[in-house]
Amino acid sequence: MQIRRIESGARMSQAVVANGCAYLAGQVATDPSADVEGQTRQVLGEIDRLLALVGTSKDRILSATIYLADVSTFGQMNRAWEAWVPADAKPARATVEAKLVAPEYKVEIQVVALV
Amino acid sequence: MQIRRIESGARMSQAVVANGCAYLAGQVATDPSADVEGQTRQVLGEIDRLLALVGTSKDRILSATIYLADVSTFGQMNRAWEAWVPADAKPARATVEAKLVAPEYKVEIQVVALV
Amino acid sequence: MQIRRIESGARMSQAVVANGCAYLAGQVATDPSADVEGQTRQVLGEIDRLLALVGTSKDRILSATIYLADVSTFGQMNRAWEAWVPADAKPARATVEAKLVAPEYKVEIQVVALV
Repeated sequence: MQIRRIESGARMSQAVVANGCAYLAGQVATDPSADVEGQTRQVLGEIDRLLALVGTSKDRILSATIYLADVSTFGQMNRAWEAWVPADAKPARATVEAKLVAPEYKVEIQVVALV
Repeated sequence: MQIRRIESGARMSQAVVANGCAYLAGQVATDPSADVEGQTRQVLGEIDRLLALVGTSKDRILSATIYLADVSTFGQMNRAWEAWVPADAKPARATVEAKLVAPEYKVEIQVVALV
Repeated sequence: MQIRRIESGARMSQAVVANGCAYLAGQVATDPSADVEGQTRQVLGEIDRLLALVGTSKDRILSATIYLADVSTFGQMNRAWEAWVPADAKPARATVEAKLVAPEYKVEIQVVALV
C-alpha cells in the first residue's frame, strides 16, 4: 500500500497519509512571540493548511492531542479552539501539560484525520 | 466515508468512529476525590461505557496512552489496570507523567480501539 | 476482524496489529545506563525488531511520539534519530518532555506503522 509524505525535512514529514488516514506532525506556532491564544490560532491555521494539502479538512479530524507548556493557559487555548472547531464535527481530544522543544512554544497540537 | 461522533460537547466528542477504528477522548475520573487506583477504575469504566456505545469492547483496544499526574503512582494505576485488562487481549501502551487539566485529576487514559 | 498481538505481558502487548496498522508500545532503553543518544539508538533498535516481527519496517512508520525526560537533550536524541530515519520515508513526529516510569529512562518512543 502506498504512503504519501508531505513536506519532508531532515527529521520528519509534516503529514503522512496511508490507509485512509492523515497523520500530522505536532504543529507549533509560526510566530512564537504570540500569546497562547494567538499561538493556538497559528497552530490551527497550520493544521488547516496541511489538511488541505492532503485533500481533507478540519471536518474530518478524528483525534487531537494538545500539549500545553503551562496547563493554566487551558482557557486561552480553548478560546482559539472553540472559535475554530466545527460545530458538527468535534474530534476526540486529550490535553496535557508538557514542556515543548523550545521555551517560546506554548502549545503544540497533533491530529489524525480521515482523508 | 462516514464519521460517527458520540457525546459531542463544546470542545470535543467523547468518541469518534471512522475507518474501522474508534478514537476516544482522554478519559478522567468521574469522582476525582478518589485515589489513583480508584480514579483509574473510574476511567476504565468510562472507557468500557464509550466502547459499548460504539459497538466494541476492551477486547479490541489497540493502543492506550496513560498520563499520570505523578509517575510515582504507577503501581497504583497498574493495580486497577491489571484487574481490568483482558488476559488475552492486551493493548500496546505508553505511560508518562504529565500535569492534567485540573489538579484533582490524577490519571487520564486515551485509547484507540477496533470497532 | 482479526487482531494480532505480539509479546504480550502482564500489562500490555509490545505490538498490536489490526486494520492494516501496527501500534507499538512505547519503547524504552534495554540498557538504561547509556546516555540519551545511546538510549535512543537502543529504542530505535527495539522498534526495528518489533516492526520486523509484524512484517513491516521503519520505511512504513506513519507517526512517532517521542517523550524526553529532559527536553534539553533534544539534540542528542535527534543525532540518533537522524542516523536511523530513512531519507525517503520520514514519519510525522511530535516530541515533548515528560517524566518516564523510571528515572533511568531518558527517552521513550511510540510509533504507528503501516503493515
